[in-house]
Amino acid sequence: MANTYLKSKPNPEIEGKKMSELRQNLITRDWVIVATERAKRPDQFANPKKSIVLLPQHRLDCPFCVGNEEDGTVETFRLGDRTSWKVRAIGNKYPALSPTAERIRISSGIHRTISGVGVHEVIVEHPRHDLTTALLSVEEVANILLVYRQRYLDIRKSPHIETIIIFKNHGESAGTSLEHPHSQIAATPVVPSQFRSRLDEAVRYFDDTGECLFCRTLEDELAARERVIFESEYFVAFIPYAALSPFHTWIFPRRHSSSFDDITDAEIFDLAYALKTVLAKLYFGLNNPDYNYTIRSVPTAEQATKYFHWYIAIIPRVSKQAGFELGSGMFINTALPEESAEFLRSIIIPQ
Amino acid sequence: MANTYLKSKPNPEIEGKKMSELRQNLITRDWVIVATERAKRPDQFANPKKSIVLLPQHRLDCPFCVGNEEDGTVETFRLGDRTSWKVRAIGNKYPALSPTAERIRISSGIHRTISGVGVHEVIVEHPRHDLTTALLSVEEVANILLVYRQRYLDIRKSPHIETIIIFKNHGESAGTSLEHPHSQIAATPVVPSQFRSRLDEAVRYFDDTGECLFCRTLEDELAARERVIFESEYFVAFIPYAALSPFHTWIFPRRHSSSFDDITDAEIFDLAYALKTVLAKLYFGLNNPDYNYTIRSVPTAEQATKYFHWYIAIIPRVSKQAGFELGSGMFINTALPEESAEFLRSIIIPQ
Repeated sequence: MANTYLKSKPNPEIEGKKMSELRQNLITRDWVIVATERAKRPDQFANPKKSIVLLPQHRLDCPFCVGNEEDGTVETFRLGDRTSWKVRAIGNKYPALSPTAERIRISSGIHRTISGVGVHEVIVEHPRHDLTTALLSVEEVANILLVYRQRYLDIRKSPHIETIIIFKNHGESAGTSLEHPHSQIAATPVVPSQFRSRLDEAVRYFDDTGECLFCRTLEDELAARERVIFESEYFVAFIPYAALSPFHTWIFPRRHSSSFDDITDAEIFDLAYALKTVLAKLYFGLNNPDYNYTIRSVPTAEQATKYFHWYIAIIPRVSKQAGFELGSGMFINTALPEESAEFLRSIIIPQ
Repeated sequence: MANTYLKSKPNPEIEGKKMSELRQNLITRDWVIVATERAKRPDQFANPKKSIVLLPQHRLDCPFCVGNEEDGTVETFRLGDRTSWKVRAIGNKYPALSPTAERIRISSGIHRTISGVGVHEVIVEHPRHDLTTALLSVEEVANILLVYRQRYLDIRKSPHIETIIIFKNHGESAGTSLEHPHSQIAATPVVPSQFRSRLDEAVRYFDDTGECLFCRTLEDELAARERVIFESEYFVAFIPYAALSPFHTWIFPRRHSSSFDDITDAEIFDLAYALKTVLAKLYFGLNNPDYNYTIRSVPTAEQATKYFHWYIAIIPRVSKQAGFELGSGMFINTALPEESAEFLRSIIIPQ
């Protein structure tokens, strides 16, 4: 009976109506209001656009399409031949951070400034314009992940870099208007305060208990099984107990490892399978919703820690942040994580 | 020359191009990339919709319009008569938190849950459907603020409440589809982790220096004058040095005070003038952009502290958060705060 507490309790009722509850995400320390009063059914979060727009396989005016490589950007890595490549890493044409600078730090009064040194690259995920991760083969997704690892390993050699952030924007509400399948790598000359506070929490949990908070979370999720979406040999995809927004999904490696670049070849292929499966369940279950994903890894100066555990967070953009979220840092989730997970488990991916 | 360091330095150039810089907001500890590479002119952030939609003064189907008050919600406060009211506070029809509950806290394993006790009210700001704060008289805006203060004072008496968040969502991208001018008050049974970490920073600064970080920020902004938008007798509106997004604006009271409900009548009228002026500058300068504002006040259990200072944050929704922001907690601001402030200073409000 050790794990019975992990099963969700029916919410208390007030005047016959289900009550909201607040749940705390111990990894982020964020509180989320799971608002059963305003809850929707999982399928109500589907993208309302009637049909999936069919894109052309190739566009002459797309800088990422095969044949259009000479657009003035610098290629930093390529998988495959120059004309028949599989995945390319290139410098962002409008980089937020630039590798060709020194890290200059100025503190004056309460103002702190650092020169915009860093890395900002685009990973062109496929030569074809019309595809998306959910529709790629496992091998094609693995190629993208192989390039992520390669660039991560290269970029972390720079003494100016403290944190490497890999992320993908899919769709306009997720922040991109470029259709061609791509993701991005940014490397910053600072540890973001959000990373720092999460690391502090993880260290505190480790000191208190002697265990990794993320390993413990995974163990609990596998025991409860209520929020697990998909399991593969090396990875588990689940909706966190205190998910900040509907269908917010985490993919955790089963093996404790604090830094993404430590991933093995076998794990890369298995992660490709897990990532493709989760994204395809979202694609077919919610009608190709816009989404972001990001790989959360330990800052580069803190490799191989016992207390941090890298993972992928997938955030479908099916709800909006409003004044409450901006004003409190808390979130209101109108989907019950257990119901969302059950819904995604039930989605069968067409072959 | 003590304050010369506050003037912005021209950014270093690389190959003739201005370089981005990172700035740290000491109040939030967030780093922001001020991305001059991708910077836009201030007027490029204007709402692209061609003209401002003219709304009807009254709608039969709007629950907030005068005459439609019997919609099943509970009125918690009213300024004015029952049929000729000025501002009303009512229970939210779909509350995320409910006042008719006990605060029950359950900790089991790594999961923490609290019953959804709290307050979630709507402030109907005006009987008319078609107005917005930017177009109201100073007296009408003062009425809204008077109701905020009254509800704040009432709500904080509840022993279950730790934090009161007053906020406004204006426009669809700011999270509302309701046209009728309104704002909201939410009161939570926890201190959000974002509040906690900012308080910790403020305490640390106070311990290090013996002064309020917010008072110091205000003093610096008034000395530099580069980012000040508007000054009134008791308030100063400025764009923070490390503004997270374009036109992100803070309105600080000059008098040190940690809690909003401590505001005097004279200050309320002056704040109404300052708030209306800033929102009107945004309205006329950026073509009625969507925005959120929120009043940041100390948690209710910590009144009259020396280290925290309440303020209003206004966040125009003129840019999108994407994977980088979600993955790092950092922001990329494509507007230079100094230029945005200069632009807003120059906007003349039609009388």
